[in-house]
Order: sequence, then C-alpha cells, then structure tokens
Amino acid sequence: MRPKFDTPITRLFGIEYPIIQGAMAWLSEAKLAAAVSNAGGLGVMGAAIMSVEEFEVHVKEAKSLTDRPLAVNFPLVLGEYEKHLEMVLSHGIRIIFVSAGSPKLLTPRIKQAGAICVHVVPNLKLAKKVAEAGVDALVLESYEAGGHVAQEGITALVNIPNVARQVTLPLIAAGGVVDGRGLAAALALGAHAVQMGTRFLATRECNAHLNYKRLLLKAEEGEAVVYGHRWHPGRALRSPAVERILAIEAENQAVDAVRKFIGRGRARKAAHDGNLEEGMFYAGAGAGLINDEPTVAELFDQMLSEYAEVVQQLGRSI
Amino acid sequence: MRPKFDTPITRLFGIEYPIIQGAMAWLSEAKLAAAVSNAGGLGVMGAAIMSVEEFEVHVKEAKSLTDRPLAVNFPLVLGEYEKHLEMVLSHGIRIIFVSAGSPKLLTPRIKQAGAICVHVVPNLKLAKKVAEAGVDALVLESYEAGGHVAQEGITALVNIPNVARQVTLPLIAAGGVVDGRGLAAALALGAHAVQMGTRFLATRECNAHLNYKRLLLKAEEGEAVVYGHRWHPGRALRSPAVERILAIEAENQAVDAVRKFIGRGRARKAAHDGNLEEGMFYAGAGAGLINDEPTVAELFDQMLSEYAEVVQQLGRSI
Repeated sequence: MRPKFDTPITRLFGIEYPIIQGAMAWLSEAKLAAAVSNAGGLGVMGAAIMSVEEFEVHVKEAKSLTDRPLAVNFPLVLGEYEKHLEMVLSHGIRIIFVSAGSPKLLTPRIKQAGAICVHVVPNLKLAKKVAEAGVDALVLESYEAGGHVAQEGITALVNIPNVARQVTLPLIAAGGVVDGRGLAAALALGAHAVQMGTRFLATRECNAHLNYKRLLLKAEEGEAVVYGHRWHPGRALRSPAVERILAIEAENQAVDAVRKFIGRGRARKAAHDGNLEEGMFYAGAGAGLINDEPTVAELFDQMLSEYAEVVQQLGRSI
Repeated sequence: MRPKFDTPITRLFGIEYPIIQGAMAWLSEAKLAAAVSNAGGLGVMGAAIMSVEEFEVHVKEAKSLTDRPLAVNFPLVLGEYEKHLEMVLSHGIRIIFVSAGSPKLLTPRIKQAGAICVHVVPNLKLAKKVAEAGVDALVLESYEAGGHVAQEGITALVNIPNVARQVTLPLIAAGGVVDGRGLAAALALGAHAVQMGTRFLATRECNAHLNYKRLLLKAEEGEAVVYGHRWHPGRALRSPAVERILAIEAENQAVDAVRKFIGRGRARKAAHDGNLEEGMFYAGAGAGLINDEPTVAELFDQMLSEYAEVVQQLGRSI
C-alpha cells in the first residue's frame, strides 16, 4: 500500500510523489530523468555546459521515454541560457529549474510562455528575493547538498522550517535526503517535496562511471567533505583531488591556489571517465547512507514503504 | 489533546515526553532543570567547572523543586568528576550524562551504583565506541549544536539515521531542534528523543543574562556561526569576540593565535555578566528560529501541539 500525496508541489507539477531528481552536471541525462518521471516523481535534466544542440539530443530522448511531466535545469552562470530555454519550450518542456543566477533573467520569459519557473536558493534571504521576482516554487538547497554549497552552511533541520515559516511558495528541500526517513523528516519540517541528486546517482539508470558509483557506495560518514570554506565551498567525496585541495587550505595558501588547482573539467572527468586521480566526485552529505544501486522504480518502492512505516509509527503518538 | 509517547528513552528515564534539556555551561542550573522535569521532560544540570560544593547547592535546590527524574552532565575534561559523581549519587540522582571523555572512566561506577549512564557523541564512529563500553543511551550531538562541535561537521539529517541504523541503543538527537517540527523530524529520522539547549536558554526559567537572551532572540539565519574549522570548532552567536576569531582565521594566523585569544572564562562572561564585548555567546544553529521567551511549561505546550499537528498532517498521506 503506497502513500498518497497531495502537496503544493505534487499539485503544481502534476506528479504523484513529492520526489524530484536533482540536476547533476553530466549525470542527469535523458534515461535517468525519464525513469524518475515514469516512477511518479519529477525527472530533471541538467544542461550543465552543454551546447543547445547537445542538450536538445537529451531533451528529445527523454520526451521519447516518458509522457509524464519532465523538467530541465539551467545554471545561469554557464552557457547561452536564453537559446536553451527557447529550445526546451519548443519541445513542450513546461517546468524550468533555474540555479545560480538572478531570478530576473529568465522568470518573465518562462511565465510568458505559460511554463513553471522554479528557482534554487540556499537560504531564507535569497528565498525572499526570488519570491519577489515572481517564481512559482523554490528549491532550498541546504549545506548537506553535493557540489557547490553556500558559505553560511545552513543545514536542512533549521533551513527548511525557517523558509517554510516566512515564504509561502511551494517548497522543495534539497540536500541530505536519501530515504523514506529523510522524506518524512523534510515534510515534517515544512517542505512540500524533496529533491535528491546523490541518491539517484547510485541507480541503474544513471550514466555515472562505475568508478564514481563504487566510490559513492563505499563512502562512510563524513566522507563527502566540504572544501573551500573561505571562498566558494563545495562538497565532494574524498579523492586525490579533494585531498590536495584540503592540503592547500591547511597550508594556508591563498584562495587562488585552490581555484587554480581545481581549474575546469574535473566534474566531467569524474562523471564520464571515472578518473580517480583528477576527477572531482561531487556528492551530498548523505553519501554515507547509500549502500546499494537499485533501479529508480525499486528506489521509489523502498522510499515510499519506509516513509509509510515511519509515518505510521509517528501516528501512534497522537 | 497532547500526544502520548512510548519510546526507548521515555521508558528508560521514566518521563512523559521525549524532550531533554541539554546541559549548557553556567546556564543549566536548578530552576531550569526542575522546570523541564516538572513539565514532563528531563532536566539536566551541567556541572561545567563548578567545584563539588558549588554544584551540590544546585543539585539540592533542584531536588527540592521537583519529585520527577532529574539528571546531571559531567564534561570529563574538567574538574574532579569522580567526587562529583559520588555527590550526585548521594542525593539520589539516577541519570548521569557524560560528555567529552572516554566512556571507560565513569560507566562502571555509574552502572555499579544502579544508575543510568548516557554518553554524548558527535558521530557513528564514537557512538559504536561508547556502545561497546556498555552505556545505556546516547546523545548524538550533530553539527547544528551550540558550543563545541565535531570537526567533520556531520549534520542531523544524515547523522541521526546513520546511527539509528547501526547502533541499537536508545538515541537522543541534539542540535538544531527548537520546535514541534524539529521533534517530529528527529523522531522520523530514527531518534527516540531530542535534547535542546539553545531553545531552553530562551525561557523564563533560564538564568542567562538578559543581554544573552536579547542577542539570541534577535539572531537571524546563519548568525550562530562556526569558527575554528581547523582545530577545535565551536558554534556561537556573532559578537565582537567571534568576529575577532573569524578575522584571525581569515588572516591565516596560526591556530595558537585563536586559542590564545579565546583563553578562559568567556562562556561565563556571556552567561552571567552579559559581557557583549568579551563574552562567547554559544548557541546552536536553530538560534534564528527562536523569537520568544516562554516559560518552560508554555514551551512544552507549543512544541507538543505543533508536533501533533505535523504528525496528523503527515498521516493524511498514508
């Protein structure tokens, strides 16, 4: 018996379960996104720094794999996002996630096209800012998230209720959720859905290199570490590249030394090449809780039944 | 209509609600602890660096204020903890919390006296270690906690389920919980109770200086910051002392410069003197969510009714 949800997010997106797959650079392609949508959640394809033509291949493929709602994510700091937007709209994508940029850039055009605009923010301050710009929903990415994290390091347990109290928009909690317990906790804290990246990385449908998945599956607590506390923090699995960054920081070298060392292309070297020496294996703080590689459908089964069990147990107290 | 709880922690301690008041140096004295126990939770008096004679005054006073279970906390790094232990046992205290030290030091004597031994740990690794030493229950203090925090920075959302899965001891989650939503989330994640410090600091019964309470009540998100990432991290409200520490760190000065600057006595200067210039105002990451100073009984009312509402809402999905 599966739980039935009716939240501002399931209603807004027209989906069955409040489970969104987070965009991950080079790792959230057609097959994964379509599988998540087919399972009753929302698949999100990440444009990363693909060209419009490259990304269009993925969009077309995903559309051919599912009739359910699908979304895309554009990081505004990269690429020709306006052309990307027109392309995805032309293929009938109606849910657009925008991260790392001003909400004023794309919101008007998305709304004008009758599509749904979702913005990714790390805290209440920016949640209020994007709410003013007229977005339809928020992804609140807390300190537990993989990849870039906000410098203040606000964790989900306090971030979610703080935004839920003060911003009335539909709210998706991202960072640290990997199972049914996390889903129940996020909803209890006031979120209307969760977004998971790292948990979907370890599914059969994700295109991540085998080395990436192995590194993730054997990670224990605390092994998805935060580096770059003093400039542009990120969270990734311990690897030679991350150890080098931590060493540079411990040596008190200038911020530029870290920036120069990271350079460009390390995410792709991890995702596609499984380059253990040079790659940056971004992952969320929940990495230590992930020990299997199910299909997306199996993952939904596990999560939803654990969620139902936990909620039933809580219900005995009232 | 109040929720009714039956968890491994409420059973172990013989209390009505799974709400424990955390020991705070100079701030968890008789009146606060007794009020929490009288409200149906568990009050915990912190010995900090008081002498046996000083602490005995508080123990006697608390015992005179409640007939319900009461506990004490000893940080093993400070003071003559063996004499403290014999003193509290002689006054009929039957629940002993031990923090910051080896579980081998006090557990045998506590068990021999027929009392309950609870150990404070920051992560799974140490949870397993104290479980082996035979303690009766755990406080799992995540990155959100005020005061000293563990260097790995493991947050509640991943820390609680990780320990709950792998250690079978009764589990108390500490750090970041300030309301009924947080209580529901912690229990959903697998905890059997929550421990709150900062939330109880802002109650009428807490002896904190008015300046401390004012600073806490006006704190917004991210203002209970972590300093000392590279040596012995702590979390406190932004104040001149904390700003100076952050500046020393930003200047890449050696770890010793921070240690020397902090020195001794800053917690007491904050707690009792309200010294805004020199005091260190330790507080958890939930500080930004605290905006009122209720009585302890009022706080229990608020939390429990919010908890019941949240659980009822979750229940509609199953």
